[in-house]
Amino acid sequence: MLLHTIKEVREQIHKWRKDELTVGLVPTMGALHAGHMSLIKKAKETCDRVVVSDFVNPIQFGPSEDFDKYPRTLDEDVKLCEKEGVDIVFAPSANEMYGEGQKLSNDNLTYVCPPFFYVNTLCGKSRTGHFDGVCTVVLKLFNIVQPDFAFFGQKDAQQVIIIKKMVRDLNVPITIVQCPIVREESGLALSSRNQYLTENGRQDALVLSKILHNIKSCYKRGITEVNALKETAYNFLTNKHDLEYLEIVDKNTLEDKIKADNESIALIACRVEGVRLIDNIYLGEE
Amino acid sequence: MLLHTIKEVREQIHKWRKDELTVGLVPTMGALHAGHMSLIKKAKETCDRVVVSDFVNPIQFGPSEDFDKYPRTLDEDVKLCEKEGVDIVFAPSANEMYGEGQKLSNDNLTYVCPPFFYVNTLCGKSRTGHFDGVCTVVLKLFNIVQPDFAFFGQKDAQQVIIIKKMVRDLNVPITIVQCPIVREESGLALSSRNQYLTENGRQDALVLSKILHNIKSCYKRGITEVNALKETAYNFLTNKHDLEYLEIVDKNTLEDKIKADNESIALIACRVEGVRLIDNIYLGEE
Repeated sequence: MLLHTIKEVREQIHKWRKDELTVGLVPTMGALHAGHMSLIKKAKETCDRVVVSDFVNPIQFGPSEDFDKYPRTLDEDVKLCEKEGVDIVFAPSANEMYGEGQKLSNDNLTYVCPPFFYVNTLCGKSRTGHFDGVCTVVLKLFNIVQPDFAFFGQKDAQQVIIIKKMVRDLNVPITIVQCPIVREESGLALSSRNQYLTENGRQDALVLSKILHNIKSCYKRGITEVNALKETAYNFLTNKHDLEYLEIVDKNTLEDKIKADNESIALIACRVEGVRLIDNIYLGEE
Repeated sequence: MLLHTIKEVREQIHKWRKDELTVGLVPTMGALHAGHMSLIKKAKETCDRVVVSDFVNPIQFGPSEDFDKYPRTLDEDVKLCEKEGVDIVFAPSANEMYGEGQKLSNDNLTYVCPPFFYVNTLCGKSRTGHFDGVCTVVLKLFNIVQPDFAFFGQKDAQQVIIIKKMVRDLNVPITIVQCPIVREESGLALSSRNQYLTENGRQDALVLSKILHNIKSCYKRGITEVNALKETAYNFLTNKHDLEYLEIVDKNTLEDKIKADNESIALIACRVEGVRLIDNIYLGEE
């Protein structure tokens, strides 16, 4: 069932609650791919009813980012969701979410602001205000849907860590379920932004996962110095790659490491053909 | 019933929810007086079950403010609540609310940040970060108790406006009920901070309500120029009064007015014996 208004969603969920059914939420910006579908499958396994939100959230994009050209494929998204047995696809307008004619800024809107320590690193360094926008819309969706469980992909590792922190800090009564990255056979992590790439760009983009897998195998062979592990990346990078960051940090707290251990995560952000791609890998797990 | 942990509160409320009982929350910092009791009475009238939170919230006090000396009278508070038929008094420790040993700053905690426009005026000008602290703890209490209704006093007018805005902006599924200011016969608005005052100070403090009532009666007699209305205050002020602000603004949006109208509110903040006191009055209502 495709719903566009908060009121309709709340009415439907109220009925489910009366029947004591559990509810799962999969927040997405649409342009659904197999990564999203893995979240939806997990939600279907876990909950009696599943809501997928499909909303390209303006307040998490910077002024020079790809909000306008971000892929919007609602018809296809709805078909994929129906096939998977999703109960509600919630696709609100920006006016529905933020109020008619509301100027979208800190001057006029209440924001949820994650801790500076979690924000002023990795993706947050180049994407000022991004995680404020993410937390704000996610908390809004939580309050609209009031799910028991919400499902997020490990692909956006910093995002999941920040959302888990928000849930703890604000006592949000929802369990966050984190699902593994889904990759193409080539190793490329699925992303809605992959469709911006040409065939050549897709080849160049493989370097992200290659660098991460190589770091992991070096770690498994006994190299633990973070600097040494990071240096292994430079063999892979060419002039087609505009590296934004490559870091090895604690997978729960994002704290820097000098030596990698089984609690470490390696994260990379790199532009290929001007498209900003991210990927990550846990060093301690198979 | 006096409870100190989030877990106990949630368990009790879960039982009420199973019985389809409505829940009201009265957030307080304790030191309960007749102003709080009017909120509690309203909550008892409105809801099947009433929770009073009693927590002096560290993150809404500035470094030079009165957090340490703020009155703490839990035993008396509990007695007053029992007499009024309150079902739960929730009195958590700071560790329970913010985590054991957690440093209380934007570096480490997720904050709820109300819009700059609502914050950078009136009390917010002198109390940097105050309303971030208020919104954060209120949203936490909302998430812990998940009430149907929450009750706030008009005494803290800017606070209620900001909390209503937060509820709209973040789609919080709770109805905010605003209750009128309770005054002593002298006109003095009740406040936990009144107990800092000497007898002479209490006399000097009467000037706040006198100024506001005089502005209202001038308005009723046809004076609408905000500047002219504000000037009427100076007859009342002596060297015992350290005026922080006197403003006449829109009662819903806090927007400045040039001419007062029936949607206007007059607000004052003034120190007497070093004690910061606030008061306000609607111009358009009897």
